[in-house]
Amino acid sequence: MRKYRVGILGATGTVGQRFAQLLENHPQFEITAMAASDRSAGKPYSEACAWKLPGTIPENVRDIIVTPIEPPLDCDLVFSSLPSSVARETEETFARAGYPVISNSSSYRMDEDVPLLIAEINPDHVGLIEKQRANRGFAKGFIVTNPNCAVVSFAPPLAALHRKYGVEEVIVTTMQAISGAGYPGVASMDIMDNVFPYIAGEEPKVEIEAQKILGTFANGAIENADFTVSAQCFRVNVLDGHTASVRVNLKENSTLEGVVEAMRSFPSLDLHSSPKNFIEVTDEPTRPQPRLDRDNGDGMTITVGRVFPDNIYDYRFVALSHNTVRGAAGSAVLNAELLVSKGLI
Amino acid sequence: MRKYRVGILGATGTVGQRFAQLLENHPQFEITAMAASDRSAGKPYSEACAWKLPGTIPENVRDIIVTPIEPPLDCDLVFSSLPSSVARETEETFARAGYPVISNSSSYRMDEDVPLLIAEINPDHVGLIEKQRANRGFAKGFIVTNPNCAVVSFAPPLAALHRKYGVEEVIVTTMQAISGAGYPGVASMDIMDNVFPYIAGEEPKVEIEAQKILGTFANGAIENADFTVSAQCFRVNVLDGHTASVRVNLKENSTLEGVVEAMRSFPSLDLHSSPKNFIEVTDEPTRPQPRLDRDNGDGMTITVGRVFPDNIYDYRFVALSHNTVRGAAGSAVLNAELLVSKGLI
Amino acid sequence: MRKYRVGILGATGTVGQRFAQLLENHPQFEITAMAASDRSAGKPYSEACAWKLPGTIPENVRDIIVTPIEPPLDCDLVFSSLPSSVARETEETFARAGYPVISNSSSYRMDEDVPLLIAEINPDHVGLIEKQRANRGFAKGFIVTNPNCAVVSFAPPLAALHRKYGVEEVIVTTMQAISGAGYPGVASMDIMDNVFPYIAGEEPKVEIEAQKILGTFANGAIENADFTVSAQCFRVNVLDGHTASVRVNLKENSTLEGVVEAMRSFPSLDLHSSPKNFIEVTDEPTRPQPRLDRDNGDGMTITVGRVFPDNIYDYRFVALSHNTVRGAAGSAVLNAELLVSKGLI
Amino acid sequence: MRKYRVGILGATGTVGQRFAQLLENHPQFEITAMAASDRSAGKPYSEACAWKLPGTIPENVRDIIVTPIEPPLDCDLVFSSLPSSVARETEETFARAGYPVISNSSSYRMDEDVPLLIAEINPDHVGLIEKQRANRGFAKGFIVTNPNCAVVSFAPPLAALHRKYGVEEVIVTTMQAISGAGYPGVASMDIMDNVFPYIAGEEPKVEIEAQKILGTFANGAIENADFTVSAQCFRVNVLDGHTASVRVNLKENSTLEGVVEAMRSFPSLDLHSSPKNFIEVTDEPTRPQPRLDRDNGDGMTITVGRVFPDNIYDYRFVALSHNTVRGAAGSAVLNAELLVSKGLI
Repeated sequence: MRKYRVGILGATGTVGQRFAQLLENHPQFEITAMAASDRSAGKPYSEACAWKLPGTIPENVRDIIVTPIEPPLDCDLVFSSLPSSVARETEETFARAGYPVISNSSSYRMDEDVPLLIAEINPDHVGLIEKQRANRGFAKGFIVTNPNCAVVSFAPPLAALHRKYGVEEVIVTTMQAISGAGYPGVASMDIMDNVFPYIAGEEPKVEIEAQKILGTFANGAIENADFTVSAQCFRVNVLDGHTASVRVNLKENSTLEGVVEAMRSFPSLDLHSSPKNFIEVTDEPTRPQPRLDRDNGDGMTITVGRVFPDNIYDYRFVALSHNTVRGAAGSAVLNAELLVSKGLI
Repeated sequence: MRKYRVGILGATGTVGQRFAQLLENHPQFEITAMAASDRSAGKPYSEACAWKLPGTIPENVRDIIVTPIEPPLDCDLVFSSLPSSVARETEETFARAGYPVISNSSSYRMDEDVPLLIAEINPDHVGLIEKQRANRGFAKGFIVTNPNCAVVSFAPPLAALHRKYGVEEVIVTTMQAISGAGYPGVASMDIMDNVFPYIAGEEPKVEIEAQKILGTFANGAIENADFTVSAQCFRVNVLDGHTASVRVNLKENSTLEGVVEAMRSFPSLDLHSSPKNFIEVTDEPTRPQPRLDRDNGDGMTITVGRVFPDNIYDYRFVALSHNTVRGAAGSAVLNAELLVSKGLI
Repeated sequence: MRKYRVGILGATGTVGQRFAQLLENHPQFEITAMAASDRSAGKPYSEACAWKLPGTIPENVRDIIVTPIEPPLDCDLVFSSLPSSVARETEETFARAGYPVISNSSSYRMDEDVPLLIAEINPDHVGLIEKQRANRGFAKGFIVTNPNCAVVSFAPPLAALHRKYGVEEVIVTTMQAISGAGYPGVASMDIMDNVFPYIAGEEPKVEIEAQKILGTFANGAIENADFTVSAQCFRVNVLDGHTASVRVNLKENSTLEGVVEAMRSFPSLDLHSSPKNFIEVTDEPTRPQPRLDRDNGDGMTITVGRVFPDNIYDYRFVALSHNTVRGAAGSAVLNAELLVSKGLI
Repeated sequence: MRKYRVGILGATGTVGQRFAQLLENHPQFEITAMAASDRSAGKPYSEACAWKLPGTIPENVRDIIVTPIEPPLDCDLVFSSLPSSVARETEETFARAGYPVISNSSSYRMDEDVPLLIAEINPDHVGLIEKQRANRGFAKGFIVTNPNCAVVSFAPPLAALHRKYGVEEVIVTTMQAISGAGYPGVASMDIMDNVFPYIAGEEPKVEIEAQKILGTFANGAIENADFTVSAQCFRVNVLDGHTASVRVNLKENSTLEGVVEAMRSFPSLDLHSSPKNFIEVTDEPTRPQPRLDRDNGDGMTITVGRVFPDNIYDYRFVALSHNTVRGAAGSAVLNAELLVSKGLI
């Protein structure tokens, strides 16, 4: 089987490095283009990139010469982890030039003709692509996005509850890992022996993205889910793994057993990067923990624990996801696999 | 002026060490007795104690011979930081033997004839002492307590709001420091690169203590405040300083300015350990932070920040207190100063 | 091929858990017995063990009922990670009862009839087993040991230099990971924002074990290598991975290139747990780093970097190994594979 | 007494902030000018500076308007914590314009007519100022420097030994705090769960500065001490406090007691910032530790421990200093006090 040829936009960053790692032995995709800032362009990837993941740069990308971030690139589709300051313009340029753009950036997430995908939850939202092409005059290319890394930690259990009971209100307090800020990102003096109570732009994103993801696609458009989210977001001294402390009110009558069962039985997909379990629910009282649970399902499983009735809300629970795998590069790769399976790539 | 002679129960533990530090140059109290487990008894404090605070053991207690934890002790009152497993019986023994017991333990906090004090908030609750003596047949001694260290981080701003507007519901998510678990306490393998989602017995304490503290004392009894608290408690990789993420609903109409003003203007006391400001409200978007703000007011000030309207609740904010000073030994010392000022010691 | 049936002595500890992990899909060994302290005996392993490695307890050992640490055990050989307080007596009991004992404990390391093995360096030292059996009256069983985890970080590059040039003097300063102390092990208050300058019993072990490992086996005995080691050992705030800062004087003339080449070309073995490269030498100026390099070769490779001429000694370099894989359980498994390959198991 | 009016060059950086903190209530100096990069110039210090020390910006400097880094400044002398890239030219400009420049920068440390001072060790080196003025045509101004922060951790005990026995060779391995790199400085992803084996330019500085400091001043020049230093420098996950692991060979016969006594009895000075003890020697086996000992003597004491005979060298020990107090701003302030006491300011 011929592999799809892939370009990475923002190849030298933290998420770009995850793409290189996740695609090293991928059966459907192979990296053929690495695009990064002008400072890096012209150098082999191994020189341009300050590799921060364990081990060394994958052999198959070491010698790829980094190019500027502009079409044409020698590839069939692009994964983008561009900073939002440049993503809006650049990603449109690529889509217009005919490339499917699988974006991890926040720029287009809330545009009404752009799918905001968690492959297991709302795969039908890819139906927006047709409208997007019409709206924007894209002939062959398009843009799909995956959510903010903090949203990914609690949207899956929420989806399970929403599907079964209807969600009314959600209170979420996040404790987010330093890798979410990229490299150099969080200064060590800001996080050692500390909690940092502010992540620029994060709380608004967390408060709006879930309604779109759990929205319904009909007549060529998304109708957002009608619950409300309140978010407070903190950075904590953890390398990888965003933890969300969640309270939720449901619309219909429910039981604790029913709630746990809804999460546990939420189906995974049959794609290469799909974990065996999309959502794992643990009843160990001291779990989930980022260090022990972030790599569940090779970083693609959401781990939920401490599901209890709450004093004020119907339920409380703790949800955890790997922020640079399931919360970023891994979700984008899974989205690409979904698009291939649907014949859209 | 003669100083009151003080005994420390649980002298070698983390909070016991804080007592030694805070009382080193205290104008009203001097440590004359150090009581600890049988393993330590008979040794000089400097040998019995594995000192974990910066610097070295204060000179004035180095050579005190540690005694068993039983009366008589050579002192006028005792501070207790006993583990709850032994506190209930031991503290009663001391009260019955005539000692005022200023306890940091959880054993008696919710007993209806025992004051649960934050000196600035409910000093009138010392009125319970009379009833307590009658109930329990204490001739001269008595027990007063200070709250759980996590409660101390958010009860003060809550008190400010409750007094002005009435509090209806509170959602609190805590990120607590490792020193709260004492020594050896939290294993490094459990907290490095990690968030630990469980602190034994903590969530129930946090959900009930605030109502008593903010309750009203009348006719010799406390009527608890009638709001509800929902608490999720996490341990994070911070040495000192508990951070609370809070949402609150108020009973009466309010404004953001009025809320901030209520906190800022909540009066401090004129006691030796009182900070200049009981509650500081910062409008720096990245504060409070445990490392930078825990020592405000020598560890006795509560620092509040990020006070904003919330999507679901009336307001959200972040509150921080030093868990072993204001949240433990410092509060106990302040309580003792309050009792002296009221002629109860 | 029939697999050898393996028992783990000290199965619930940090190193015991690593054994369970490393043997989960091993082609030659399968765990059939889990022995631990009386407190754990009688429970399924999944209940007896507070699992501290990422993920969950391997399926194949979850339900094994933990037994007391005494023969007979239902197995062909035992891996021991017993604390040294009990290892000496218990390991002898097992050897006398006919079990090959592959020990990670320090008790027998320096006994002159017990091999202290790093499989790539001194596999011929297994020749001591014959003498050991004669000395101690073991019919079928025997004891082999692997070195202290800190020694394993620098002994391999030292072996490469010793074989080629002869080593004269070694100055080593170690920065050791918290997992080396087991669980609960290092208290978080002792290591957060800290360096701990003392590890009980460590410096003497580090100063004597290398000479035996690099010694020569002849006439049924080891003649220790005749260099001297000076060790200062520190605990640092790292989860896994011991870093050693090394200066070395060589006996014969050498060049920097020759030194690097000696390390790079030191052969690995052809056993299941052998890494592709026994020693990797990096010329990245900022490597090795524990977080990035400890998992090289699945934790079995020693990574060396910053090899330079020194101001006083001939050379300086930095060496890193994974302390609970190559420095403990992984080395023991490799030793067992070596013994199988030599027909001794 | 009139206070000397002080300007800070590089006022918004980590060391600049320490100057502001240390001079807040200084009896001899008051800050009247704050100079920083063009980006900050024109703003009040409280706005220009991202304060990273505990608490808030001292009141007395909050409203000082930051000026560009060029003379004239409204002050009698300047403290400089400029990055070395600009320090050489700028500090000369200030000296030429008549200002005493007390520099924490590395630019002039090894110039043969510039004193490299640790006030307790080589106060007579200020004699170089006369020659410096002659050489460089400075009328009234001059430059004095304090050493690299890592050197300050071990030079004091070395000075004690050198004065008594003569030092021949020194092996030092440093474990340095993140604050030494300023802000944002070390990326959190580089140091969490990690040791970073490289600090740009550090090892050469550590290998040459001690000889000048311990050199003798005679005939208007310094004759460097003739020992050799070998340095390996590491960054560890510690906020403040550089730890040095040291081995030393002495020229004359010595005893362990004599060595300890030499350190303990090394005299402190009678200046405002002098600690009671310049060098403290602890015999606690687990000390010094950065978290517990860096603030000894308000951060101005060097704490030494684990002094033992070494296997190869005469002695080994561990030395610790607070890198941004004694190792930077505090040493500079002490140097200024020394210069005032000698009538040079």
